[in-house]
Amino acid sequence: MLSVLDLVLQIETGTLTPRAVVDLCAGAIAEREASIGAFVALDLEAARERADAFASLPLRGLPVGIKDIYDTADFPTEYGSPIYAGHQPKADAAMVALVRRAGGVVIGKTVTTEFASLEPARTRNPRNLAHTPGGSSSGSAAAVAAGMVPIALGSQTGGSVIRPAAYCGVAGFKPSFRLMPTVGMKCFSWSLDTVGVFAAGVADVAFAAAAISGRDLRVDRAKPSAPRIALVRTPFWPEASADMQAALARAAQAAAAAGAQVRELDLPPLFEAATQAHGTIQDHEAYRALADEIDRHRDRLGPILREQLVNAATISPEAYDDARRLARQARRAFVELMSETDVILTPSAPGAAPHGLGSTGKPTFNRLWTLLGAPCVNVPGLFDSAGLPLGIQIVGRFARDRLALEAAAFLQRALTTL
Amino acid sequence: MLSVLDLVLQIETGTLTPRAVVDLCAGAIAEREASIGAFVALDLEAARERADAFASLPLRGLPVGIKDIYDTADFPTEYGSPIYAGHQPKADAAMVALVRRAGGVVIGKTVTTEFASLEPARTRNPRNLAHTPGGSSSGSAAAVAAGMVPIALGSQTGGSVIRPAAYCGVAGFKPSFRLMPTVGMKCFSWSLDTVGVFAAGVADVAFAAAAISGRDLRVDRAKPSAPRIALVRTPFWPEASADMQAALARAAQAAAAAGAQVRELDLPPLFEAATQAHGTIQDHEAYRALADEIDRHRDRLGPILREQLVNAATISPEAYDDARRLARQARRAFVELMSETDVILTPSAPGAAPHGLGSTGKPTFNRLWTLLGAPCVNVPGLFDSAGLPLGIQIVGRFARDRLALEAAAFLQRALTTL
Repeated sequence: MLSVLDLVLQIETGTLTPRAVVDLCAGAIAEREASIGAFVALDLEAARERADAFASLPLRGLPVGIKDIYDTADFPTEYGSPIYAGHQPKADAAMVALVRRAGGVVIGKTVTTEFASLEPARTRNPRNLAHTPGGSSSGSAAAVAAGMVPIALGSQTGGSVIRPAAYCGVAGFKPSFRLMPTVGMKCFSWSLDTVGVFAAGVADVAFAAAAISGRDLRVDRAKPSAPRIALVRTPFWPEASADMQAALARAAQAAAAAGAQVRELDLPPLFEAATQAHGTIQDHEAYRALADEIDRHRDRLGPILREQLVNAATISPEAYDDARRLARQARRAFVELMSETDVILTPSAPGAAPHGLGSTGKPTFNRLWTLLGAPCVNVPGLFDSAGLPLGIQIVGRFARDRLALEAAAFLQRALTTL
Repeated sequence: MLSVLDLVLQIETGTLTPRAVVDLCAGAIAEREASIGAFVALDLEAARERADAFASLPLRGLPVGIKDIYDTADFPTEYGSPIYAGHQPKADAAMVALVRRAGGVVIGKTVTTEFASLEPARTRNPRNLAHTPGGSSSGSAAAVAAGMVPIALGSQTGGSVIRPAAYCGVAGFKPSFRLMPTVGMKCFSWSLDTVGVFAAGVADVAFAAAAISGRDLRVDRAKPSAPRIALVRTPFWPEASADMQAALARAAQAAAAAGAQVRELDLPPLFEAATQAHGTIQDHEAYRALADEIDRHRDRLGPILREQLVNAATISPEAYDDARRLARQARRAFVELMSETDVILTPSAPGAAPHGLGSTGKPTFNRLWTLLGAPCVNVPGLFDSAGLPLGIQIVGRFARDRLALEAAAFLQRALTTL
């Protein structure tokens, strides 16, 4: 993998040019893209020509892959749907423009599942081509894992950043809701859609997020301090694989051994109800956000998505309002719950990446945190006996993104020295 | 003006066909559009052909005008900007699709100011062509006021629905934040952009909003009950014209005479600070939402908007976070403030529509309520000595949109029987 921080340091010290970084990406793409299928559009030549001009900006001309759910003026944008074959937006999405402002160079668009739904796409997991990379940010997670790009953008409505990051063994960061703009990103659920960033390690993803947002999110300039961690198994613990259950225990031990306070925390029942509310809110909104596609192009929707949206038509405004009320209650209760805790430690996914490409896995361990709008970080570093990554998740307090990233960096370091 | 309720009744009883309603609109357009300039695109022929097929749906095939800030698949969408000259979106915005689902027939796109900003547009006020219709939903308010369409969609980020409704003497409804989807509407500020609906009277706009949202918002089936009203002059009272100050007093008297409880209420200082926070949030977000246009097409932005966005670049994330915190505090305080009140009665604008087209007027009396996400209704019915409308505003509790509409209908009826 290409570490953002390593590349930035080499560019700053003159041992590498931004153009040469594009060549590194091009080399990995030439070697692995044919088997992985992470990209739907690429323009390495344009990136090569432009990269050096951005060397003085925060992202130093580093190549960035953009999930094909974000509009781009220089690349077609198909949202993973045949309805949008060849579609060319007029303007860049806000996040794409912010990447440019920060000095990132967009080298291409990465595979998204159809409208970022659970419908699987064609991308394969770079860790083992027989497995899914997860979704819906399939291409972004896979591209970073395969060393084809140091930074990639994704999005999460259920578990679409943290899950693929976990399956591919990279760092994934879903910031607090609305910390980064979703403007120009194809909407699935306006109450839940959240931007995400992928990079090799936690400090890399924090550096990229800091540069793009102009916020103090870096965690690479000092040793991360030891956080107060709440180990949360969630009501869905029985759905976690034995490997995942062991991995979480190991992560907790490593954090404690490195000096973190670790205690166990049970979620009040309200949070299980809120997790159900996630689906109601998401689907009610999707039936409206994708109204044009449902009404005019129903036959061109994938079967999983079509069934989901047809069922969504039956959710009443009252059920939706009840779900939103529950979500607000849960957000308030979460503030209370976190009053003596810096972060939560919990699985990123039920286990390692499922075999085959028929499913992108389940967002079981993601939906609650997305609903709460809390910052989430996938911490890579653990593996199952077959060598597949097992992702561990740090969940922070709302709007305390730096604290979450620092705790995640602390955990990653603790796992490395295990 | 064309009353939605009258037209629906006539269609239901068979004295009018939807196609004949299109002809009524076409007649008014032929007579007045050349001098008013409310539309940027029109297709009366297509509407005429389709209208009767929708007669069994809630909106009965009624013609609808759509502010050109919403994407439409059947009409170009230019957002009031030369950057988007001839731009043709691929899909309808969610609200446009919901209008279709409800049986409305889109007859054309109405003039928006540039990206729904304070930059003035060319539309004239149907009440007096020498005056502005207000903005940014200039064409929608004017089209309804001129009887060219019974229903029109707008949007409000500061005061862009309530102000033009007030200036043009029509009912305008800005629902609670996120009650209706902004998906596919060009974004200016994701924390503030709100959908709006225009129609002749309050019961008309409530009927249209009910049909489009599938929610129980109608207020025409029973006599509205007498609300508990708080008369709020706001800290900006000195900016209200003498005519407006008198109009508000008259509205309060009429409501009281009709049986409403009316008391005076002073806003705590927090709300004045929150009104300032509105500008910080709006501009910080606009600098990102319009990043592509600012970075690639700066020379093609209008002078007012360009200056606003250039200044917006200097707003720090910290200042933005402080403003959002203040907004959250104000929203919580607003719940308290409204605990013994159904609605607030307050001016819709500083006075009647300003003379000339050089300014669309000021959102002084709108920004706070937009920030709070509260439902707002412009109640028409009062006029100054020159015959220009003076709009009075009903502001409701968050998510109590029906209560706000009912109180507004009560007030409109009270003004009529004055």
